[in-house]
Amino acid sequence: MSNPADQPDQPIQTGALGPDEGATPVLDAALEQAAIEAIAAGDADLVRDLIRPLHVSDVADLLEHLHSEARQQLVEILREGFNPEILTELDETVRDGIILQLGVADAAAAVAELDTDDAVHVMGEMDEADQQQILDAIPADDRTLIEAGLAYPEDSAGRMMQRELVSVPEFWTVGQTIDYLRDSAEAGDDTLPKDFYEIYVVDPTHKPLGEIPLSRLLRTKRGVSATDIMNPEMNLIPVAMDQEDLAFLFRQRDLVSAPVVDDSGRLVGTITIDDVVDVIDEEHEEDIMRMGGVTEDDLYSASLETTRARFTWLLLNLVTAVLASLVIGLFEATLDQMVALAILMPIVASMGGNAGTQTLTVSVRALAMKELTSINAMRVIGKELIVGGFNGILFAILTGVVVWVWFGSLALGGVIALAMIINMTVAGLAGTTIPILLERIGVDPAVASSVFLTTVTDVVGFFVFLALAGLFLL
Amino acid sequence: MSNPADQPDQPIQTGALGPDEGATPVLDAALEQAAIEAIAAGDADLVRDLIRPLHVSDVADLLEHLHSEARQQLVEILREGFNPEILTELDETVRDGIILQLGVADAAAAVAELDTDDAVHVMGEMDEADQQQILDAIPADDRTLIEAGLAYPEDSAGRMMQRELVSVPEFWTVGQTIDYLRDSAEAGDDTLPKDFYEIYVVDPTHKPLGEIPLSRLLRTKRGVSATDIMNPEMNLIPVAMDQEDLAFLFRQRDLVSAPVVDDSGRLVGTITIDDVVDVIDEEHEEDIMRMGGVTEDDLYSASLETTRARFTWLLLNLVTAVLASLVIGLFEATLDQMVALAILMPIVASMGGNAGTQTLTVSVRALAMKELTSINAMRVIGKELIVGGFNGILFAILTGVVVWVWFGSLALGGVIALAMIINMTVAGLAGTTIPILLERIGVDPAVASSVFLTTVTDVVGFFVFLALAGLFLL
Repeated sequence: MSNPADQPDQPIQTGALGPDEGATPVLDAALEQAAIEAIAAGDADLVRDLIRPLHVSDVADLLEHLHSEARQQLVEILREGFNPEILTELDETVRDGIILQLGVADAAAAVAELDTDDAVHVMGEMDEADQQQILDAIPADDRTLIEAGLAYPEDSAGRMMQRELVSVPEFWTVGQTIDYLRDSAEAGDDTLPKDFYEIYVVDPTHKPLGEIPLSRLLRTKRGVSATDIMNPEMNLIPVAMDQEDLAFLFRQRDLVSAPVVDDSGRLVGTITIDDVVDVIDEEHEEDIMRMGGVTEDDLYSASLETTRARFTWLLLNLVTAVLASLVIGLFEATLDQMVALAILMPIVASMGGNAGTQTLTVSVRALAMKELTSINAMRVIGKELIVGGFNGILFAILTGVVVWVWFGSLALGGVIALAMIINMTVAGLAGTTIPILLERIGVDPAVASSVFLTTVTDVVGFFVFLALAGLFLL
Repeated sequence: MSNPADQPDQPIQTGALGPDEGATPVLDAALEQAAIEAIAAGDADLVRDLIRPLHVSDVADLLEHLHSEARQQLVEILREGFNPEILTELDETVRDGIILQLGVADAAAAVAELDTDDAVHVMGEMDEADQQQILDAIPADDRTLIEAGLAYPEDSAGRMMQRELVSVPEFWTVGQTIDYLRDSAEAGDDTLPKDFYEIYVVDPTHKPLGEIPLSRLLRTKRGVSATDIMNPEMNLIPVAMDQEDLAFLFRQRDLVSAPVVDDSGRLVGTITIDDVVDVIDEEHEEDIMRMGGVTEDDLYSASLETTRARFTWLLLNLVTAVLASLVIGLFEATLDQMVALAILMPIVASMGGNAGTQTLTVSVRALAMKELTSINAMRVIGKELIVGGFNGILFAILTGVVVWVWFGSLALGGVIALAMIINMTVAGLAGTTIPILLERIGVDPAVASSVFLTTVTDVVGFFVFLALAGLFLL
């Protein structure tokens, strides 16, 4: 019943949870501070008391926030009866450290307790050597399942899927299905998933024929055949499908769960949306990091490692900065005659860089979301050229007037205005064509676009401004 | 049964779907091209034939990709029996145009056909005036529900929630619950949601006491009481909760659906993960756009509108670029004596800007994910200072040697090296402290950080390099 008016009105004593309880999306800062102090004081009992009511993801957050020494102390306090679910919620760098600290025996015990998909996830991000050590210490039957998952390529549906699922033969009725679920629950059958959202009707070769959402199963009379209420139009996921495509499919089709099939079309697992949300977050992080010139989120990495990881990108930028300087060097004689040019030239380059970054951001995002395709590419490029030109004219007027007043030279104002129009139009063109071309040759536009873009806007900005100055002012 | 070996082995004639069918995550390019040609040729029947098998989100994609003239032709072809679900999948700009074209009567009919939460979503993004016109044309009872949704603040849980849900009184058994679901389905009760993943046990004042996942309900014998299998620890969502906090909670707790309660704790709706995924995507887009200096995704906006929207950001950048030029202007005399400085000075500023952007990217992301808190802020700032200093030293050596060779002056190489170390260390400091300070004063770090950062790295870069040159070289 969905209407409160339908409810019987006998008084009830049970206290309902208030709207504030249960809804604390973030680890409470006061509690965190108390835990940190208890850890520092070495009061293990107090720490355990403080942590007991926390959700595993909050414990994981706490571990991530701690200084490495305090983190090690906390792991020791939690070692006995360590909740393995914590591992699935941790950042990779922090998790590797904790697994190392737990040691092979304890780490293997923790991993073995996890659901297969979580165990595969945790193991899949480890070094080969550590992975093998821990696998060897896991009981044979769990190990086989984990190894089967690890056998699928990284980032594939096979890696992500849960192998436990509910399938029924096509001649079963709703009643038989419900009885089967009740009986196996009673018998303690642990091949059934803990949570599931749909069941699958399969043929004798275990190929899926259709899916039945649980809400539909619950609303149907016992005598109805499973095939009568199944939805035969499923979104079948091939085991080899890449997780990015998978995330796109889930979003595009608003899916909550979907069946995974092997090469011969047999049902081998299911993927549920909560795992897909993790993929979406991962992709998000990748996009943001790459646009910012960082290979991966290094918040928890050591300083030396972070320095090394960021070095390559900076080196590439040094090369382009030197290239820009070489272009300026071409106009040494011009600069020598008019020092005002040296003062003003960064403005032209900087405005081109910023206008180009705006265009680039929209284009890279549209490519990732498959909104920018060969169908509308020419239209988008044309539009960005126009936008670049328009803003170029506006800023040419603004800058031209400022420079005219500042240096008292109308000619200098005219030169910077003309350079501005040219560089901002070029920026619009480069901001769209660079990511499109990179995508076409198979390079991730998020990684490499911005370095090419700034090279173009710096080189064009300095060259056009100094060349025009040489032509008209000297 | 989860094992293929358990299946009865009688032969089956029904053709199972192959792994490739159904799994086309993107609108097929050939089909899209064919549709575009059919629209251009004015062959309405062929267009309808091509579009009929498509999922609504693919039709929405096609509409988005089309040139505005072709889009209008396609809307006319689809006008009769227009599938309202298409509206929910469209980009806002494109949707507004289509609603305008459909006209008040047809648009109102389409909106009225949608689920309440989708209708509220579509209506909520419209102009006030258009919204009122369309609301007035919607039948009274649908209108009341939509208006109730629109009464909640934008981006709140109240706006997103679905009002249809299944709740049962606490004295019911599993059997009574299932019978109720079957009877109301048979009676065609349309106050029940189409899909749902859990039911709620409520007290007589309609406050939620616990939730029962459908998979648990299905596995329990008929005689068991609902309260015996319910989970009393729910993640209650207050109607006023902001969608960002909501998305964070869903991710943190791996939720699939959650109950929404009003101020007095009564159950008023549910929110399911598919709507939360849309919020996550929206946030993602916002982050990326803001970091790139674009207020919102303007792929489908007109050129003039886009120009205007991007103008403000560029104006701000012009101000900072002029500021940097003023700093250079302080050293006019120095530059006049040594033109090599003009050639080299952009290198120092550019390397600082790039190193700072790397730090900024990691910090802004960590703040958004609540991984960078007051607990670990000092540690992160310290680390980034060290990383900035390390990379500063490495690039000081590299650049110093290059400049020494290029200009044949060891002193000039030394000056640029020293400037590089200082600017890159400052970049590490600014890249962490700027976003942290902005967040503390309540400004979104993603929007404003980068302009402050480049101002700092440009000003410090030019100033330190030219000032050191003035001190040691002249």
